[in-house]
Amino acid sequence: MSTCELEVAKRPEKRGHEASYEAISPADFFYRNKSVAGFDNPARALYTAIREILENSVDACEEGGVTPEIKLSLADEGDGIYHLRIEDNGIGIPKHEIAKCFGTAFYGSKYVHKQGRGRFGLGGTMAILYGQATTHRSFTVTSSTGNDRATTLSMRINIEKNTPQIISNHDGETPKRWRGTVLEFSLEGDWVRAKSKVLDYMRQSAVIAPYARLEFRDPDEHLHLFERVTQKMPPPPKEVLPHPRGVDAEMLTRLIGKTDANNMASFLSKHFHRVGKKTAERFLGFARVEAGLNPKSLPYDELVRMARCMKEFEGFLPPDARCLSPLGPDLMEAGIKRVLNPEYVAVNERPPSSYSGHPFIVECGAAYGGSVPKTDGFLLYRYANRIPLLYDAYSDVSFKVVQSVNWSRYKLRPTMPVAFFIHVVSTKIPFKTLGKEYIAAIPEIEHEIKLGLMECGRMLARYLRRKERIERQDRRMDHYRRYLPLILRDITELGGYKRKPALIPLLEKVAEA
Amino acid sequence: MSTCELEVAKRPEKRGHEASYEAISPADFFYRNKSVAGFDNPARALYTAIREILENSVDACEEGGVTPEIKLSLADEGDGIYHLRIEDNGIGIPKHEIAKCFGTAFYGSKYVHKQGRGRFGLGGTMAILYGQATTHRSFTVTSSTGNDRATTLSMRINIEKNTPQIISNHDGETPKRWRGTVLEFSLEGDWVRAKSKVLDYMRQSAVIAPYARLEFRDPDEHLHLFERVTQKMPPPPKEVLPHPRGVDAEMLTRLIGKTDANNMASFLSKHFHRVGKKTAERFLGFARVEAGLNPKSLPYDELVRMARCMKEFEGFLPPDARCLSPLGPDLMEAGIKRVLNPEYVAVNERPPSSYSGHPFIVECGAAYGGSVPKTDGFLLYRYANRIPLLYDAYSDVSFKVVQSVNWSRYKLRPTMPVAFFIHVVSTKIPFKTLGKEYIAAIPEIEHEIKLGLMECGRMLARYLRRKERIERQDRRMDHYRRYLPLILRDITELGGYKRKPALIPLLEKVAEA
Repeated sequence: MSTCELEVAKRPEKRGHEASYEAISPADFFYRNKSVAGFDNPARALYTAIREILENSVDACEEGGVTPEIKLSLADEGDGIYHLRIEDNGIGIPKHEIAKCFGTAFYGSKYVHKQGRGRFGLGGTMAILYGQATTHRSFTVTSSTGNDRATTLSMRINIEKNTPQIISNHDGETPKRWRGTVLEFSLEGDWVRAKSKVLDYMRQSAVIAPYARLEFRDPDEHLHLFERVTQKMPPPPKEVLPHPRGVDAEMLTRLIGKTDANNMASFLSKHFHRVGKKTAERFLGFARVEAGLNPKSLPYDELVRMARCMKEFEGFLPPDARCLSPLGPDLMEAGIKRVLNPEYVAVNERPPSSYSGHPFIVECGAAYGGSVPKTDGFLLYRYANRIPLLYDAYSDVSFKVVQSVNWSRYKLRPTMPVAFFIHVVSTKIPFKTLGKEYIAAIPEIEHEIKLGLMECGRMLARYLRRKERIERQDRRMDHYRRYLPLILRDITELGGYKRKPALIPLLEKVAEA
Repeated sequence: MSTCELEVAKRPEKRGHEASYEAISPADFFYRNKSVAGFDNPARALYTAIREILENSVDACEEGGVTPEIKLSLADEGDGIYHLRIEDNGIGIPKHEIAKCFGTAFYGSKYVHKQGRGRFGLGGTMAILYGQATTHRSFTVTSSTGNDRATTLSMRINIEKNTPQIISNHDGETPKRWRGTVLEFSLEGDWVRAKSKVLDYMRQSAVIAPYARLEFRDPDEHLHLFERVTQKMPPPPKEVLPHPRGVDAEMLTRLIGKTDANNMASFLSKHFHRVGKKTAERFLGFARVEAGLNPKSLPYDELVRMARCMKEFEGFLPPDARCLSPLGPDLMEAGIKRVLNPEYVAVNERPPSSYSGHPFIVECGAAYGGSVPKTDGFLLYRYANRIPLLYDAYSDVSFKVVQSVNWSRYKLRPTMPVAFFIHVVSTKIPFKTLGKEYIAAIPEIEHEIKLGLMECGRMLARYLRRKERIERQDRRMDHYRRYLPLILRDITELGGYKRKPALIPLLEKVAEA
């Protein structure tokens, strides 16, 4: 485009209406729109900051296959300022990536097709950015990838440019091959108002990650300790290729741009999930694209048509679930028991399913009695890729499903001590907000949640029926125990028998009937 | 920072755990996370796209002080692809800004402290980007700032780089000093499922912008025409300086960086809203900062302390409302009548208020009877800076307030034909999502909505009481009208009078009593 001077409109009455324009950096965008990332006010911001850095830490540990051991502390520095410190035993960050990872919005681990907590490359940086905007202090990161040396950087973020500014840089030995990351920064917050949500978040994290150990020292100097209840971790997710159903024209263009395949058949089988030679050929027949065509010479219009055919072709295998890592029934049960100590737990893992090419699995649980509190409705615990979701429950797909089920068919009434747990894992959770508060009502996910919950409902109903039957029998036996001795005595007297018949075998007979 | 080679961890069992890292562009970020910007699925995406470009167009007209005249058409191109075209009579975009405005995420009109619909510099670009990702077609913009010439560009977005790519560029004369912008692009959509929301959105837009004329030709070739009902537009908002209460350390640093004031007192009065010499001096006394100090030599710690003092100082004048442009009671009433044609309308504009330095005004309305449908609850229409909000009502502050009011005190029951309207205008609407679906529950806003709604409730209650009284009187008069003639006849007969007393004066006496 030829650039030219701004021509001022000639009509005098319209003068001065030309707007001026500007480009802003991603960091600046989120600085200006903090509330869309969950940093609305000091209380919510404190909650979101803790949550984002905690998730990054747990992810770094699971990535390395070690059970997470996380130490978090929040100290009151007065004037509404808090100092946040987190230490994990995760994989650490390579020395030359530390500054960019923490000091740049939209910079992070490369996106791959597998389940993970963070997907935005944004949360940790936003927490630090919010801290800097409110306190103007620098932050410190120490990290080691386990090579006997650790790097400590003191930094700021240049928000207008979205770049890190290093203030000091220290490289030193670590004791005993220590591996992990320590992050420290200050931020404005409101602990009094954030407290209950923060502790709730940790308690719910303990349900969904029973293999993690979390130590949290709060500003009141209380130590909250969430000990792990198991060493067992779910098998880690594997990276897979993108599924053809989830592909659009843009993605297809990118893949064609970087492929070294020189014909369509090998292009398809090389870059897509569960597409072998045969499936590729069947698909190309369906889409009426020549198998021998060089992908790079596919015209634009054909490419768009092919992307659409990929969504319509029925012959692709469904995505497999290796890229997912559900908790599994045992760990889910252990987690629920760890926190709610209920009288009865039902858990149910649904088989893998998918929506627009993204595989997902739904796990459901229902807890009854014990420490489960009675409320006006059913308690609902929501999780997505092992993140507890605490806000905006009304807008969540799980809430919608719980509302839609006729629970009276399962002998459940809202005033009973019942809690439901719903965990969705996917390579792509359809979050509606950057603050990861709730999941969109995708029909496929809704359906799976419904089936999972109904199965839990059936199990719970069976338990409640059994419980009721036993109670009824107990009441009946109580009657026999009270009156049978009297009857036996009277019969013995009236019949003139010498000995009363034995009571116990008779009671046993009654019980059997 | 010294860059160095990635050191591979030495422990063999941990090999291969190093993640790889990448930076992504803003356009790429939103391409990968379409659902956070409201582009979840073809139906929702079509709705969001129409809405975003419509808002940009209306804004461009209001910016230029002309009553909006917008022509929108959506044509079905088959295979789930739609062609969207919008034409407005707004201020137009200067020639050398067109490409960047439409082809770059985070590029747009410079942010100023006044009310406006768009604030993210993102919506229009996201709509085009979504269209390109799903259809891979280029898009076209024609724009003129009213100088007898128009520029037509055909473009694509390079999503990975977040830059526009010009395909063709044409500069030509326009007929009759035409001013405005025409945007055309194709996108995947689902008209059948999006239809009701799209039309609802337009109907609600007609309520809140009764001075706008909108013509919409839908894919079924139906023409939906929303004629303006008034030529009157609310006075346009004025740009103001930032209010000291809304300032954080980052913003203060930026202002100090670009100021040419050489002492604190003049720095404050020059860059902040409603801070004069006296207020500046009183504040500096409160914050214990020397008035003669050069702002550029203020140390970091002092700067942070000063930012906090700005939030605490009680002596600042509240922000004034020149930067806001509420609809006003007359236009609000006209808008409500235009669409719902109710039996009675109550409207109420609250005085300006502010939260964390951002001024806002709440306008409320209540409509009763007429075409207002009866539902299980009260209908709620939500608006923010003249944008109708249709999704996620449950999470919105207005919903919360409507739920919390004891409506029976106002003689209102959920089954009555009642609709509430709430319009919040602010320099900074605290949206919780990039899709601008709902407003966060900021206590100050909540409070104003409550007062506004309660006032409407009182007006409505008064109307209903009056209506009931009149009905009661009517019933009473009916009795008199029926029986008084008989009584008069009998009295005349029994008393042997010659003439019956006149009926009308007697009825009038009864009515007076």
